[in-house]
Amino acid sequence: MDPTDPVAVLAGLIRCPSVTPEEGGALALLERLLGSEGFTVARPVFTEPGTPPVENLFAAIGVAGPHLVFAGHTDVVPPGDPAEWRHDPFGAVVEDGEMIGRGAVDMKGGIAAFVAAFARYRRRHGLPPGRLSFLVTGDEEGPGINGTAKLLDWAKAKGERFTACLVGEPTNPEALGEMIKIGRRGSLSCEVRVIGRQGHAAYPHLADNPVASAVQIADALLAEPLDGGTEAFQPSNLEITAIETGNPSVNVIASRCSIFFNVRFNDRWSVPTLKAELEGRIARGAAAERLRKGRSAAGYELFWREPPSEAFLTESGGLTEALVAAVVAVTGRRPELSTSGGTSDARFIKDHCPVVEFGLVGKTMHMSNERVALSDLRGLTDVYEALISRWFAANA
Amino acid sequence: MDPTDPVAVLAGLIRCPSVTPEEGGALALLERLLGSEGFTVARPVFTEPGTPPVENLFAAIGVAGPHLVFAGHTDVVPPGDPAEWRHDPFGAVVEDGEMIGRGAVDMKGGIAAFVAAFARYRRRHGLPPGRLSFLVTGDEEGPGINGTAKLLDWAKAKGERFTACLVGEPTNPEALGEMIKIGRRGSLSCEVRVIGRQGHAAYPHLADNPVASAVQIADALLAEPLDGGTEAFQPSNLEITAIETGNPSVNVIASRCSIFFNVRFNDRWSVPTLKAELEGRIARGAAAERLRKGRSAAGYELFWREPPSEAFLTESGGLTEALVAAVVAVTGRRPELSTSGGTSDARFIKDHCPVVEFGLVGKTMHMSNERVALSDLRGLTDVYEALISRWFAANA
Ligand SMILES: [Zn+2]
Ligand SMILES: [Zn+2]
Repeated sequence: MDPTDPVAVLAGLIRCPSVTPEEGGALALLERLLGSEGFTVARPVFTEPGTPPVENLFAAIGVAGPHLVFAGHTDVVPPGDPAEWRHDPFGAVVEDGEMIGRGAVDMKGGIAAFVAAFARYRRRHGLPPGRLSFLVTGDEEGPGINGTAKLLDWAKAKGERFTACLVGEPTNPEALGEMIKIGRRGSLSCEVRVIGRQGHAAYPHLADNPVASAVQIADALLAEPLDGGTEAFQPSNLEITAIETGNPSVNVIASRCSIFFNVRFNDRWSVPTLKAELEGRIARGAAAERLRKGRSAAGYELFWREPPSEAFLTESGGLTEALVAAVVAVTGRRPELSTSGGTSDARFIKDHCPVVEFGLVGKTMHMSNERVALSDLRGLTDVYEALISRWFAANA
Repeated sequence: MDPTDPVAVLAGLIRCPSVTPEEGGALALLERLLGSEGFTVARPVFTEPGTPPVENLFAAIGVAGPHLVFAGHTDVVPPGDPAEWRHDPFGAVVEDGEMIGRGAVDMKGGIAAFVAAFARYRRRHGLPPGRLSFLVTGDEEGPGINGTAKLLDWAKAKGERFTACLVGEPTNPEALGEMIKIGRRGSLSCEVRVIGRQGHAAYPHLADNPVASAVQIADALLAEPLDGGTEAFQPSNLEITAIETGNPSVNVIASRCSIFFNVRFNDRWSVPTLKAELEGRIARGAAAERLRKGRSAAGYELFWREPPSEAFLTESGGLTEALVAAVVAVTGRRPELSTSGGTSDARFIKDHCPVVEFGLVGKTMHMSNERVALSDLRGLTDVYEALISRWFAANA
């Protein structure tokens, strides 16, 4: 396998069925490729009670000095219904200039592009003036317990210090070069468990209906926007993902009812200030039901899902500038600096060094017939090679 | 067994384990007792696909003329955890002046009292000037499909015409003589199935959250009281018994969410007018969510549970007056004429003749250690005998 050919490398990775938490041969392939390029490769396995053990990979090359780390994951989400795929999801079939397969864009394609970009850089320029590493987990699509967070601590304990990090997740909505992610919203989830008193629907005065309180609490949570957005972020947003009562009988008033919600929030908030705001809204909703009922109503307990993640923004600096310049030079597009979308492992990396994200077009990620245009894969390889050049030139 | 002794008759009935839909020997015992008193007894069995067959009993005595029918059921709810009973739930043990057993008050006690009341009346006065019958089902506590409704049609097809009906369900909250039921609220149940579009919680603009619409619809359903009550009825009441989403993931916006509610309504409403009011509220709730969202929101479908039951009120007349007079004469209490509580088979009978309900004290019905004070059982027998006398005297 030619490590300078991102198409060959990606085909090799897709053919490893590395559905979380299975390694599937993907990290072993990466170990062989990077080993032959001169990297020192480690394969730490992390475990924690209640979760499956997960394999990870850390590969580094070069001397002390500015240290650029490329972060990513080889695990993929399950392919789902095989009948919805035009070709084997682990077959890496090329059709009409696109390679089809689970992980094509999220994010075996990003890894293949960076492997090829470094191999080409080294053939042209020799080793970079500093240190370069791959930080790759097999636990990004799963619980995220035995992956990037532990791998960062592991590397730190080995004495590794990172100057800047590029995450290779798919960041472009429609076309390569549209969007770089320079931060992420935070995420906070909670269960509001409303505790009432069971009874017969014909005798409501002998019961406390927890659903009635839950409706008022849910209404209070949704009543007002959390904010209007900030300079770098879109408005924070709260979604109630479920209300569950678990009551099969329409003649019976239930004893409890739970509201589950998730907030994606911007840098107007921290986890503590946001919790305080939400607790106030929940208390106002419960009070509204007491008022409506004219007597004591159901009580409630809050269960915050741990760990939440804080919003973060990478200060503009050498890394973002080098990446923007590389994107403009290769694609001709000036990328938007965005903080939109879901969370990624960048939330762990931001505590170690500045981190930005740039990868393929994410349109088909997690869907059947996930696929990447070979032209995009080659373009991304060019962007990554230009980034390595520019960043080391600026930091040497 | 002495048919004039309600204690002996009740003990015999309790010892028949007639948990719905089992006959358990209870109707056979009744057939023997009434046969020996001169009744013509029929034991029709009704069936319907998807439900167990159910045995019923119709027993009549006397000539054409005013026809008083006593309606009730020998089936009982399951005893539940045997460990919670002080004695065998089918043992009819007497302790401290109370008989303990499943069905003691709901409503084998009512049947025993009416059997004894008629037997005493006949020994004192001979046959009444008209016709008297027992209409007894084994399917009141179950689905109610193969019971009273079909038995009424069966009797009508045989040429029976009823002048008035007494139902022997327990109607007194605390003491014998407190309460006669002269009507019942109607009951209407519905599932509002809100259909949204699934998506990731981080990308709400690509989804339609059905829970958000459900909250607004639920709020609209609860916003205003349905009415302030009527002369004979308490205010109508709506209870949301459940909101169910069935979404286990807090990162995913659900595709659907169902609201289940039940309305107990008074004679201010009929099923059609109430449905129209509720459909209006649901539409306003959905519109409120569209307004909040500023774009199309989730849609919904309504599934009304069939059959609903209409509210009804028995016009004051000979039956109610004779019953009130009998209660006052025996207990010294002037009974409240009430329409409170749940539904009963009176909802079927009201389409055939005026119907009122009076029986034992219901406090322990459906509970462990269900029991009746023997003094109440004897008092109810006296009330029923006085009713037979007074009603036939007034209608002869
Ligand atoms: Zn990914
Ligand atoms: Zn009953």
